[in-house]
Amino acid sequence: MAPLEPVLAPPPTRAHVSVARLSRYWYVACTSRELRLKPLARTVLGLPLVLFRSTDGPTALLDRCPHRNVPLSAGAVREGTLECAYHGWRFGNGGRCVAIPALCEPPGHRGRDAEAFPVIERDGLVWVYGDAQAPPTTEPPSLGCGPGYATVRAQMTFEGSLHAVAENTLDVPHTAFLHRGLFRKPGRDLEITCQVTRSADRVECRYVGEPRPTGLIGRLLAPQGGTVEHADRFLLPCLTQVEYRLGESSHVVAWQALTPETDFVTRIYAVLHFRVPLLPGWLVRLVVEPVARRILRQDAAMLRQQTASIQRFGGERYVSTDVDVLGPHIWHLLKRAERGDAPTEPLERTVTMRV
Amino acid sequence: MAPLEPVLAPPPTRAHVSVARLSRYWYVACTSRELRLKPLARTVLGLPLVLFRSTDGPTALLDRCPHRNVPLSAGAVREGTLECAYHGWRFGNGGRCVAIPALCEPPGHRGRDAEAFPVIERDGLVWVYGDAQAPPTTEPPSLGCGPGYATVRAQMTFEGSLHAVAENTLDVPHTAFLHRGLFRKPGRDLEITCQVTRSADRVECRYVGEPRPTGLIGRLLAPQGGTVEHADRFLLPCLTQVEYRLGESSHVVAWQALTPETDFVTRIYAVLHFRVPLLPGWLVRLVVEPVARRILRQDAAMLRQQTASIQRFGGERYVSTDVDVLGPHIWHLLKRAERGDAPTEPLERTVTMRV
Amino acid sequence: MAPLEPVLAPPPTRAHVSVARLSRYWYVACTSRELRLKPLARTVLGLPLVLFRSTDGPTALLDRCPHRNVPLSAGAVREGTLECAYHGWRFGNGGRCVAIPALCEPPGHRGRDAEAFPVIERDGLVWVYGDAQAPPTTEPPSLGCGPGYATVRAQMTFEGSLHAVAENTLDVPHTAFLHRGLFRKPGRDLEITCQVTRSADRVECRYVGEPRPTGLIGRLLAPQGGTVEHADRFLLPCLTQVEYRLGESSHVVAWQALTPETDFVTRIYAVLHFRVPLLPGWLVRLVVEPVARRILRQDAAMLRQQTASIQRFGGERYVSTDVDVLGPHIWHLLKRAERGDAPTEPLERTVTMRV
Repeated sequence: MAPLEPVLAPPPTRAHVSVARLSRYWYVACTSRELRLKPLARTVLGLPLVLFRSTDGPTALLDRCPHRNVPLSAGAVREGTLECAYHGWRFGNGGRCVAIPALCEPPGHRGRDAEAFPVIERDGLVWVYGDAQAPPTTEPPSLGCGPGYATVRAQMTFEGSLHAVAENTLDVPHTAFLHRGLFRKPGRDLEITCQVTRSADRVECRYVGEPRPTGLIGRLLAPQGGTVEHADRFLLPCLTQVEYRLGESSHVVAWQALTPETDFVTRIYAVLHFRVPLLPGWLVRLVVEPVARRILRQDAAMLRQQTASIQRFGGERYVSTDVDVLGPHIWHLLKRAERGDAPTEPLERTVTMRV
Repeated sequence: MAPLEPVLAPPPTRAHVSVARLSRYWYVACTSRELRLKPLARTVLGLPLVLFRSTDGPTALLDRCPHRNVPLSAGAVREGTLECAYHGWRFGNGGRCVAIPALCEPPGHRGRDAEAFPVIERDGLVWVYGDAQAPPTTEPPSLGCGPGYATVRAQMTFEGSLHAVAENTLDVPHTAFLHRGLFRKPGRDLEITCQVTRSADRVECRYVGEPRPTGLIGRLLAPQGGTVEHADRFLLPCLTQVEYRLGESSHVVAWQALTPETDFVTRIYAVLHFRVPLLPGWLVRLVVEPVARRILRQDAAMLRQQTASIQRFGGERYVSTDVDVLGPHIWHLLKRAERGDAPTEPLERTVTMRV
Repeated sequence: MAPLEPVLAPPPTRAHVSVARLSRYWYVACTSRELRLKPLARTVLGLPLVLFRSTDGPTALLDRCPHRNVPLSAGAVREGTLECAYHGWRFGNGGRCVAIPALCEPPGHRGRDAEAFPVIERDGLVWVYGDAQAPPTTEPPSLGCGPGYATVRAQMTFEGSLHAVAENTLDVPHTAFLHRGLFRKPGRDLEITCQVTRSADRVECRYVGEPRPTGLIGRLLAPQGGTVEHADRFLLPCLTQVEYRLGESSHVVAWQALTPETDFVTRIYAVLHFRVPLLPGWLVRLVVEPVARRILRQDAAMLRQQTASIQRFGGERYVSTDVDVLGPHIWHLLKRAERGDAPTEPLERTVTMRV
């Protein structure tokens, strides 16, 4: 008999949670720099994976030895193969079992192989395809940029669903409160226009007439002020992008690749490219990096509280308004893709927002 | 698939647990002193609540912003309203949404309000009614006292059901063992008479012929010894009272207001009024307060072990004897009230107990 | 409503786990040295037990006071009885309730007794029979030895099922990898013959032609090298034995009594008897004891990872080969005994293994 749980409970909710599970897509499993001599354990879509560099390049296996089910990530890379720490079985390209030391004959049959997932390394990121059975028909996107840009990278684990994290990375109204002073401030009381465009695999919002944000980051990017071009984008299933442009000189593109580890834990790989006038890249990076990390930590703390609250209440009960410009569309795209529906109809919409 | 749990289990029990859930009653959520400038998170009947002082007085809301479901208790009180930390939505009297900063029109419709629970502040305690839908037809009780008394207050969280905690606060036999020397001692071997009277909403036990308890507290309250008048009372759904009187001069009333946070976690708000001969109140308080806290801690530790054992075995298997004078009656009253039965018949009973 | 769990899950398995539950057998609950003046809490087969020395010798009761269900192990031994810490009830031989202090009559009826389990103390170990209702028809085995042996004892808790731990204690191939250098080394590349014999209640493997193991332990036991006689044995339901003999002079017998605390937690009581030439027992013990403990810790760490992996994936998916000489037979014996099948047919088998 299972131990009793405290069961006095919050009031019932609709028990909805904005979680979609999309396996036939590419997700970032780690950065190229993290994948070195030792096997690396990562979880993608709830799948425990071990990554290592085999003689054939980066390889991702289910993190479980077929023999006695211990995690292969506890083993070692030897001669381009992954050796299990318990009995020394070795696995090579494609998960093939290439050695069983105590056995007097060769490893032989396929049941002794480890399950392998497609892997592609690109622009410093190692992408894994979430389905070991269905060969991928697409390639992972490039998050690189042209010459003349400085780049800041960061990664962090958020306790939130992919949807909650994606909405958060693209949401403007919270920046004046949660990041008060760092990026925007409350009470400037300006009305701007938001143009929302949704197509089959993406949704974007362009902000028209937004003056330079008043916080530290805004002053750095546009020391002379002026009106910025600002767009926020979501691309199925796991990419968000924030872009700022001020004339010819200033340009910032912030990519976030979101990897669902479980339904409520999302790892974020952020890549921030920027080009600003007058100041050298290393100097801007010196200022931007700690502020970017602080913003990420504030978001992580808020999403952790949000997720704990949703779990405590047994589901979400969101109320959206016009100024939640992207969140509901992101959910629409995720849910349709999970169900395998035909691509959604294009949509255009304009709303006003006070910033 | 959920991870496997260790399932080798203790032997089956009747799987009974003495938990009753009574929502249409008043419970203490916090003390007046705790409710100051910041929002305060408390759990009552499994309900996550946030308390704050609005322009209309103490206010209790469900601790979840209607917008994105983060806890409102993470926010701040501004101008008599509660501001959410994520997007700055504000809630006023009765949970009314009074501001959505990024929205160009007023907050408008009711779906954006937070759920509010009735609150009454009385004698230094903030009481919350456990049902947001059904307006209360009763008022919380007063735990105050007349002039000439000194008062000690304490609060503590017990890992035990309301029933287990209520029985513990009124139980005499355990005091000689669990609180050995502080209040009573084992082996005095005196027989006293217990008169139990149960009515519709309460049960009390009067102890006849009990000499002054031999422990520290007893000696303080009745330095000359003598026979005490002693009564223990339970009042539906969450009040217990222990009263000692020695002639005209000495009088002690100990109230315990019990708030079920969950089925197996109960917060106890103790209010102890006393008047003793010769000694000034501050001096008695100096001695009584640490002893009272020590007794509470011993009870808390025992109830934690009891609850862990009940959860481990998957339920209770209590065996009561004649000297469990109140526990079974408390359960009878709680269970009938939970089922909505007609009030129980009055009952009188006399038993003997060795103290 | 229960809080939501992260449910993105690893791929489905056959959801098999090698757990058998055999209650009508003797298991070690503690050592004689551990059972002294205080009551001792131990878990056997998921049963929370309290052990103490009553006037009648070692006694094992269900660790729950019949009165209010607190653990009796929180109490004290007084005058050969076990006194509950809450109300002072006392329990004697066979769990009989012998005192209820506050009650004016004797404890009387049987419902107030604590459930007692058969106990036998033998060779420094306290064995408990896993069924309080069915009187045992067998006796616990003796793990003692004749004169002229030195003995090392150790105990440790393993996070693994009884089956996983039993297989591990008798498995040869892992020693070259998990215990690299301590006992065997990889790559010696010798073929030896393994003779497996299974009967109704046991299975053993005799290794023919095995040279002295190359690690530290091997060099100590057989300084002159030579061919060893080596046998590994499993006896239903919880005993494993490893025996090494080199001529007349060297002899090592390592017993492991395995006690399932829960399905996935097994306590191991190891008793190691040895007689080696030239060196005195105390000197060998000085060297063997830390190495034996190190080996146990390495095994414990590996089994913890194995169990966590099995629980994470929701079950086992083992692939065995010829050189898993005992594990599948141990499971066969455990499963038949759990189902109450007629004893299995005798079986003999020979395989070759590379060591």
